[in-house]
Amino acid sequence: MAKHIGKQTIKFSNPPVITYTHSAAGPKETSGPMGQYFHTKFGDELINEKTWEKAEAQMIKQTIQNLLLESGKKAEDINYIVSGDLQNQINATHFGVKDFNIPLFGIYGACSSMGEAMGLAATLVGTGVATSVIAGASSHYCTAERQFRTPMEYGGQRTMTQQWTVTGCGYVLIEPTGDGPKIESITTGKIVDFEITDVTNMGAVMAPAAIDTIFTHLNDTNQQASDYDAIITGDLGNCGKAIVLDMAKKLGVDLSKIFHDCGAMMYDESKQDTHCGASGCGCSASIFSSYWYKSLVEGKFKKILLVPTGALMSLCSTQQGENILGIAHAVSIKM
Amino acid sequence: MAKHIGKQTIKFSNPPVITYTHSAAGPKETSGPMGQYFHTKFGDELINEKTWEKAEAQMIKQTIQNLLLESGKKAEDINYIVSGDLQNQINATHFGVKDFNIPLFGIYGACSSMGEAMGLAATLVGTGVATSVIAGASSHYCTAERQFRTPMEYGGQRTMTQQWTVTGCGYVLIEPTGDGPKIESITTGKIVDFEITDVTNMGAVMAPAAIDTIFTHLNDTNQQASDYDAIITGDLGNCGKAIVLDMAKKLGVDLSKIFHDCGAMMYDESKQDTHCGASGCGCSASIFSSYWYKSLVEGKFKKILLVPTGALMSLCSTQQGENILGIAHAVSIKM
Repeated sequence: MAKHIGKQTIKFSNPPVITYTHSAAGPKETSGPMGQYFHTKFGDELINEKTWEKAEAQMIKQTIQNLLLESGKKAEDINYIVSGDLQNQINATHFGVKDFNIPLFGIYGACSSMGEAMGLAATLVGTGVATSVIAGASSHYCTAERQFRTPMEYGGQRTMTQQWTVTGCGYVLIEPTGDGPKIESITTGKIVDFEITDVTNMGAVMAPAAIDTIFTHLNDTNQQASDYDAIITGDLGNCGKAIVLDMAKKLGVDLSKIFHDCGAMMYDESKQDTHCGASGCGCSASIFSSYWYKSLVEGKFKKILLVPTGALMSLCSTQQGENILGIAHAVSIKM
Repeated sequence: MAKHIGKQTIKFSNPPVITYTHSAAGPKETSGPMGQYFHTKFGDELINEKTWEKAEAQMIKQTIQNLLLESGKKAEDINYIVSGDLQNQINATHFGVKDFNIPLFGIYGACSSMGEAMGLAATLVGTGVATSVIAGASSHYCTAERQFRTPMEYGGQRTMTQQWTVTGCGYVLIEPTGDGPKIESITTGKIVDFEITDVTNMGAVMAPAAIDTIFTHLNDTNQQASDYDAIITGDLGNCGKAIVLDMAKKLGVDLSKIFHDCGAMMYDESKQDTHCGASGCGCSASIFSSYWYKSLVEGKFKKILLVPTGALMSLCSTQQGENILGIAHAVSIKM
């Protein structure tokens, strides 16, 4: 029902279907160009909770509830949840999913988490060992900023290469049959170390990982970039997006007409002061589950390659002088 | 080739084989009763590195190198690594695996990580989408203590319910055929919240999760506990082990003759001052990859249920008054 092809790719002979999606986003995200597409829009970052960390868990919980409601499923109909977030110990995920009593594969791939989660979920369904799997990822501006950078009250100057962590999440339901776009194949990324040490330039960390996974995917599946209507990275931001286009060009491929980056799509820099764009695993998760999913269903795009990208940044390793490592996971989706 | 049975279990009709294992452990672990079984024994916690965090990554790297060496495989023969650890952002895993250029599924299940990793790896191989997957987990006393509790220099008094985080790791190679014990089925756990808030009593957090997964596994597979020569939890320690035996008894099952816990096996409390036993995902990973694997290969045990157990503890959620959540993943292994 599924087989390993090339170096890093699994191809499904019965491609699993993304039957339902639900996205949620915070106030800054819903004020941006993508705002009209999100399913649930929160007016503040606290979502009636006492802390930002609890708010992120609440956002996940409501998103899964809505996904179940729309699909007409009960929690006991779902075989597995595969998901992750940016909080230490993927805390938001644990507290967000706990009340559903659904078996959990907790994952960590930094901002590539949505790709890893969808890849594993598609594999569970596409190989026939599960009939109903929820995959998702989330991030929260306030929980990420104070964990990875500085206290929110500090108000430090942001560099122009810096990105704004998305408060948002996206969860999808994957089933063997049904209406919706299908996952044709997945390409799981390996760690790419371009020896970047600048914690304010995540785009530069992730761009080489994106290139590695995109080109490996095309080789493994014997396709050209032009076989896709869109190749969409997770959260490279404007700087990382330019690096990808440049690197692809040097490799002889002009991606400019089909290349999109969720990190560059989320905000309007001219009005929202977000500098290089958006980041966080909630970025590609929320935009895929809203805008891209809708575009596929409506036929605006027929075949896309979603490539959530992760900078495996950690306060501890950075303080110990280590490079910031990158990874990217690709999911090929066709309507 | 594999199917979902009962509530949470995947059963393999062509059970994948654990063809090779490698374990590594620190000085305290090699001085304990399990010391004679570990493959690589480190004389100190720093392993010639400048920090404990780098030492944990080095331990992982050497373990995978040894696993490749023993199996006669090259890194490019391996389809995937599935692994995790306790450092924030599973940092040790990322730096430990990066030089192998093998696609990575990074996971986080706290001390249940070895169960989650082996479960996913078995699924990738058992469904035929991979032919060679490495699964593993690690922990390090010094990196975990200073991250989750207090600085090492602080020297706080430990309570009698407290456990000692293992410096150690275990990695296994899973293939479709070959010599070695086979993975018959896996049961993926759901989050169990027994409303425990005592960060010095992880056994009490994990015991209900272990019971939930063990009993679900037996129900799903239509087996009795007595069908197993040994049911082995990850790192409940002496306190959690007693809770499991007690809870099982109340549910009408006497586990006393076949129940083992890696956390209770690792140290000799009479000499090593470890109080309730061992913890950390390196505990079940290292003891399974050495003692239990050897016992299976030598025929001392024919069929075991390995149940790595995790307390999904996080400094941040504990400080915000949340309960500590538990999870456990079971892997049924037969020689």
